[in-house]
Amino acid sequence: MDEDVEGGNLVSYQDRPRTFPNMRGKPYMPLIFRIIMRINVRVLFMLLLLGLGTIFYIGASTSPIIVFVFSVCIVSFVLSTYLTKWVLSKDEGPPEMVQISDAIRDGAEGFFRTQYGTISKMAILLGLVILSIYLFRSTTPQQESSGLGRSTTAFVTVVSFLLGALCSGIAGYVGMWVSVRANVRVASAARRSAREALQIAVRAGGFSALVVVGMAVFGIAILYATFYVWLGVDSPGTMKVTDLPLLLVGYGFGASFVALFAQLGGGIFTKAADVGADLVGKVEQGIPEDDPRNPAVIADLVGDNVGDCAARGADLFESISAEIISAMILGGAMAQRCKIEDPSGFILFPLVIHSFDLVISSVGIFSIRNTRDSGVIGAIEDPMAVLQKGYSVTIILAVIVFGLCTRWMLYTEQAPSAWLNFVLCGLVGIMMAYIFVWISKYYTDYKYEPVRNLALASSTGHGTNIIAGVSLGLESTALPVLVISISIILAFWLGQTSGLVDESGNPTGGLFGTAVATMGMLSTAAYVLTMDMFGPIADNAGGIVEMSQQPESVREITDVLDAVGNTTKATTKGFAIGSAALASFLLFSAYMDEISAFSQLPFNQVDIAIPEVFIGGLLGSMLIFLFSGWACSAVGRSAQEVVNEVRRQFIERPGIMDYKEKPDYGRCVSIVAAASLKEMIKPGALAIISPIVVGLVFRVLGHYTGHPLLGAKVVAAMLMFATVSGILMALFLNTAGGAWDNAKKYIETGALGGKGSDCHKAAVTGDTVGDPFKDTAGPSIHVLIKMLATITLVMAPVFL
Amino acid sequence: MDEDVEGGNLVSYQDRPRTFPNMRGKPYMPLIFRIIMRINVRVLFMLLLLGLGTIFYIGASTSPIIVFVFSVCIVSFVLSTYLTKWVLSKDEGPPEMVQISDAIRDGAEGFFRTQYGTISKMAILLGLVILSIYLFRSTTPQQESSGLGRSTTAFVTVVSFLLGALCSGIAGYVGMWVSVRANVRVASAARRSAREALQIAVRAGGFSALVVVGMAVFGIAILYATFYVWLGVDSPGTMKVTDLPLLLVGYGFGASFVALFAQLGGGIFTKAADVGADLVGKVEQGIPEDDPRNPAVIADLVGDNVGDCAARGADLFESISAEIISAMILGGAMAQRCKIEDPSGFILFPLVIHSFDLVISSVGIFSIRNTRDSGVIGAIEDPMAVLQKGYSVTIILAVIVFGLCTRWMLYTEQAPSAWLNFVLCGLVGIMMAYIFVWISKYYTDYKYEPVRNLALASSTGHGTNIIAGVSLGLESTALPVLVISISIILAFWLGQTSGLVDESGNPTGGLFGTAVATMGMLSTAAYVLTMDMFGPIADNAGGIVEMSQQPESVREITDVLDAVGNTTKATTKGFAIGSAALASFLLFSAYMDEISAFSQLPFNQVDIAIPEVFIGGLLGSMLIFLFSGWACSAVGRSAQEVVNEVRRQFIERPGIMDYKEKPDYGRCVSIVAAASLKEMIKPGALAIISPIVVGLVFRVLGHYTGHPLLGAKVVAAMLMFATVSGILMALFLNTAGGAWDNAKKYIETGALGGKGSDCHKAAVTGDTVGDPFKDTAGPSIHVLIKMLATITLVMAPVFL
Repeated sequence: MDEDVEGGNLVSYQDRPRTFPNMRGKPYMPLIFRIIMRINVRVLFMLLLLGLGTIFYIGASTSPIIVFVFSVCIVSFVLSTYLTKWVLSKDEGPPEMVQISDAIRDGAEGFFRTQYGTISKMAILLGLVILSIYLFRSTTPQQESSGLGRSTTAFVTVVSFLLGALCSGIAGYVGMWVSVRANVRVASAARRSAREALQIAVRAGGFSALVVVGMAVFGIAILYATFYVWLGVDSPGTMKVTDLPLLLVGYGFGASFVALFAQLGGGIFTKAADVGADLVGKVEQGIPEDDPRNPAVIADLVGDNVGDCAARGADLFESISAEIISAMILGGAMAQRCKIEDPSGFILFPLVIHSFDLVISSVGIFSIRNTRDSGVIGAIEDPMAVLQKGYSVTIILAVIVFGLCTRWMLYTEQAPSAWLNFVLCGLVGIMMAYIFVWISKYYTDYKYEPVRNLALASSTGHGTNIIAGVSLGLESTALPVLVISISIILAFWLGQTSGLVDESGNPTGGLFGTAVATMGMLSTAAYVLTMDMFGPIADNAGGIVEMSQQPESVREITDVLDAVGNTTKATTKGFAIGSAALASFLLFSAYMDEISAFSQLPFNQVDIAIPEVFIGGLLGSMLIFLFSGWACSAVGRSAQEVVNEVRRQFIERPGIMDYKEKPDYGRCVSIVAAASLKEMIKPGALAIISPIVVGLVFRVLGHYTGHPLLGAKVVAAMLMFATVSGILMALFLNTAGGAWDNAKKYIETGALGGKGSDCHKAAVTGDTVGDPFKDTAGPSIHVLIKMLATITLVMAPVFL
Repeated sequence: MDEDVEGGNLVSYQDRPRTFPNMRGKPYMPLIFRIIMRINVRVLFMLLLLGLGTIFYIGASTSPIIVFVFSVCIVSFVLSTYLTKWVLSKDEGPPEMVQISDAIRDGAEGFFRTQYGTISKMAILLGLVILSIYLFRSTTPQQESSGLGRSTTAFVTVVSFLLGALCSGIAGYVGMWVSVRANVRVASAARRSAREALQIAVRAGGFSALVVVGMAVFGIAILYATFYVWLGVDSPGTMKVTDLPLLLVGYGFGASFVALFAQLGGGIFTKAADVGADLVGKVEQGIPEDDPRNPAVIADLVGDNVGDCAARGADLFESISAEIISAMILGGAMAQRCKIEDPSGFILFPLVIHSFDLVISSVGIFSIRNTRDSGVIGAIEDPMAVLQKGYSVTIILAVIVFGLCTRWMLYTEQAPSAWLNFVLCGLVGIMMAYIFVWISKYYTDYKYEPVRNLALASSTGHGTNIIAGVSLGLESTALPVLVISISIILAFWLGQTSGLVDESGNPTGGLFGTAVATMGMLSTAAYVLTMDMFGPIADNAGGIVEMSQQPESVREITDVLDAVGNTTKATTKGFAIGSAALASFLLFSAYMDEISAFSQLPFNQVDIAIPEVFIGGLLGSMLIFLFSGWACSAVGRSAQEVVNEVRRQFIERPGIMDYKEKPDYGRCVSIVAAASLKEMIKPGALAIISPIVVGLVFRVLGHYTGHPLLGAKVVAAMLMFATVSGILMALFLNTAGGAWDNAKKYIETGALGGKGSDCHKAAVTGDTVGDPFKDTAGPSIHVLIKMLATITLVMAPVFL
């Protein structure tokens, strides 16, 4: 064994660059930033201005709405820069905190670099595959007539894909970048004032939320405008503007591709470290969480950053992108069917809604201020109430803005009252989000009966605790599914009765109504993401406080913030599932349109009474089960490696328990990093390869049995069944995990015997099982659902 | 607290009639048997002869095939009577064994009586509901023309339903009746010879298997013949014989209705007792399984009878009935489309196949003989090998008989080689069964890697054990789904290319091909059921041996038999899922035909691209998750009551641990019985009510949005999605449970620290969690899937 690795101790951690593979002592900075930093400031400024000028010029040639979107995005980027500066200006506390924080940062940035290195290689490979598929695909007569040749389509799709992948990567990086810097500042501020700590954590979260949402909007808007100008859209003999959004699908696929691996790798990392640390530390040795004697504690804290911050950033980036693109496609398709004169309002509506999201969420973020009278520790109100107040402000603004926007963008002479229906659709979405939050709180908060019963079940042993948790999770799927069902039907009905009709007089606004509801749900996405990002930052701050052995009062403050973070995290997951369900449903109809266009055959139904199509559905549901199984077993296997390593250190260095010896943190980090990089490949590859293989197999089978479009139909069923099973599985995993976590927390408040009792031990087992459920498999399924929807769309030519 | 109950001890157990509510000292005998026994023997004999004469007369008026089926059934009933006499002639061993056995019998029969009392009340209520629905339903012009009025249809359906329910109840009762009598005889025989013990257990299992399968065949054949004669089928102006099987659907629904509650109630009983006994006995007190000091041990042994024997009997009865009826419907429909002159071969084929099943399985059962030279204990071969040899005999005979039957019944001049294709379909089914068995063995036997890895995961704690088990279960769904998929496609293709064409020349044998494959799979059902029934009898015998403190060598024999029983149990579950998947798929197409016939609207596709239909699917999958959650939580809650009671007894009677005091077994039995009767209602009601409610709601919605058949379509999607999710969920639950059980057994062989180590404790936790998975929720889902398929068919008029 490497002598250098063996001798790990905290103080000299930074000086030993080889404790973590590919990890260097000084903070890591991506190549692009390093290049930028070497350029003369004036030149840089000129380049920036030139770039902005070009972008605005292209935007102005497209639509004034695009110019508006660009402006809002740039303002919000400036605002987020201000937020970073503000956060970074805060003090980093005493050297022992800085040391810990540096170790976390090195671990996180090192892992990020290796992970994204692997992901980018895969993305480039997949880009080449897409390129070759598109170069050999057939084109539709429609495309031919509009001058969109094979090579143009191929180029457009691959560029969109790579840009989506790049932006998703940046979104993840930004989330982690600020988190590893804010954690120590929050920890330091907690020594002074709870309110200041809260404010720093919120602003740091707000920074990445604004960047993530802004980048999704900005990226799509740039692509849209560039394609518009480049392809000469709407000129005679070229493509129609209503077909343009379909070219953006590659962007969504790129984003979901990166998000899938980011979530898998990060999720496995964070939970393998967490489970490993808890099993030996809490259960076997009886030391508290984040105790500096636990060799896996730094790995655990690193995990919070790479798993929760980086991965959630990429996840939400991809949710918003998929939702914007699918809504644009549906808006365009509907506008075309209804022969609306200026369809740009319907197409660009999602971009405008999310631009306003940036504005109103900023208001919400800035509404959380450092009150003058909060100098005394403990003398502040409940942080959840503070966040809720900000959320209320945001949501009220959202309702108002949504109404105004709808009137502005969706008013059409053909159906003068349609916009009112769409306002109601938006309200359905906002209501759905609200009820979702309430349900997830009911099932995961220990104020309510379910978690209390779960805690009670722990008093009869490990076994009954697990049975109760699994049952709770399975049961908790019912209400959200009912809410999704009612929302889809209501929004569809509102859209259908909006008065918009196609040429033959059939009502046609149903799907677009569902799209508007999705936008309503996500109209406060930036604020929700802020609350979510807040969680791991507070968690990390708590870890730093514990490890640097601060007074109990400081730990109390970070504990409160951490608990609030757990609740907000559960909320975001509800959002992610809800939006995944809706976005997937929307992309599904885009897929059917795409297949029809290419095959020149009608494809407007997926009939599951056909055996092969039914089989497709069966395989789709199976994909979700297998994927979840692989994601969980990846965590289990990696955690076992951690457990063995931690046990080994405790045995070989008996001085650790008396604080006489320092544990080797670096070794745990490197074990987890290596394991999670290895383990993320299998489930990820499964998700990408299986729809393609199924589509190809049934395409061939259809060819020989004289069944046209069989491949495409089977893939459609696979997608739909996977979506349904995925929603249920993700709800089950997330809720069960959250409930176990909080049942443990409830017992730790002193109920049923409190910490150290047998009941508590059983509850810790439940929490351990819940970790990979709620932070690895569950969130990965959100991404998987959307990735399946985009991959089928991009790979559609393969199935024909 | 009742003084009488408090003072429980084993010796006086029989004398105290009030330890268990509704439980009497003398063996319980159903009213009907008591009435029969009071009648003069000669009169009885005359009545029997008269009854048989009538039945044969009706049969002869229908078809010679029916006479053949009747004869085989009656021979097999005679054979099974011989088997019972043979089993009952064996000695019951010393008085201490008899006492324990009597206590088990009283508990089981008492619970059975209360449970089936509740179930029969619900069945009568539901019968009235069906009656009133059918009295108000519209009739098809086709029915009107064939003289099938409302009242006739209503009467026919309700009678079928009640007869199905009654037969299902008898099937359950028979399974339990023989099991509570054979257990003590097997235990006694184990003192003499392992081979004799094996033989008694197999013959007792064979008795109930022959009765269960025989009754399914006999019941359907009687109904078919009676309706044929009564309705004057095939005479001019009446209904066609090809429509007759549709009238039998009520029988399937009645069977699945009773099976659902039998499985739920029995499953909750057995696992609540098992989990409760293990958690305190094994984990907390460290005493072995079935130790007489454990107050819950009698409840556990009672549970094996009511959960495994009675419930599995009802389950398999219902599987076979559903499969026979759906195959008859499809055979009739196809014969009609192809205008085959004598369609009776196609309709009655499943009855003949299962009649032969009785014959060949009897050969298999009788091939297991008591060898002369096995007088010495321990000097016999592996019992699994003995059972396998019998199975090989049965399967070889099955292939031969299947081929001959197909030639006899399915040969038609129109497509002379069609029968060969159907033989291949049957082989696909037999192969599928074989591969299913192999896969379930691979994932649950500790000879193979998955369970070994699971055992290894136990060494790092309770948490990693559970994570590994859940992952294993989720992962194990993949291969069976692939096998089902390939089998359906292959059988469908073989059927489609059989040369049978409809009027316009389209190939039309596809679905019937799938039906034939299902029959192939179930062509050895009676032998498989024998092996399954063998398990709980051996388990019980082991319990009696342990409790009556026999020498170690006797316990060793029953342990070996018990372990073999676990494997055969897993096998039957594979059969049950496979047949549930296929039967549900077949009944689904019958449902679509039924809806078309009644609505006079074409209904040949279920298009999940329609939002409401998609929602139906979402709700269907959700139903499975919610049902599983409720089933598991029922066990968890009941087990907690047991744990508290057992803990209380250990605290209040410290003498129990030193054998100075006898525990109060009766109290545990009555707690579990009361809890399981209460808990079975909620999931059962959910399963029955939700498809009806969903159908009604969307029917109304469809009415107001101008969407005809919306209710029927949504229910169709609900059914399909529930089937898919149900297959996956059941596979997951069964495999995970089996793997946990065997991982524990593997450690108990001495691996990884052996009994009493921390690793073993973690494995016991896994086993505890797996209990409700594999013996309550999992098997209940098999039944649920088929119940959904039959309920939608019977309730079809409600959705229009």
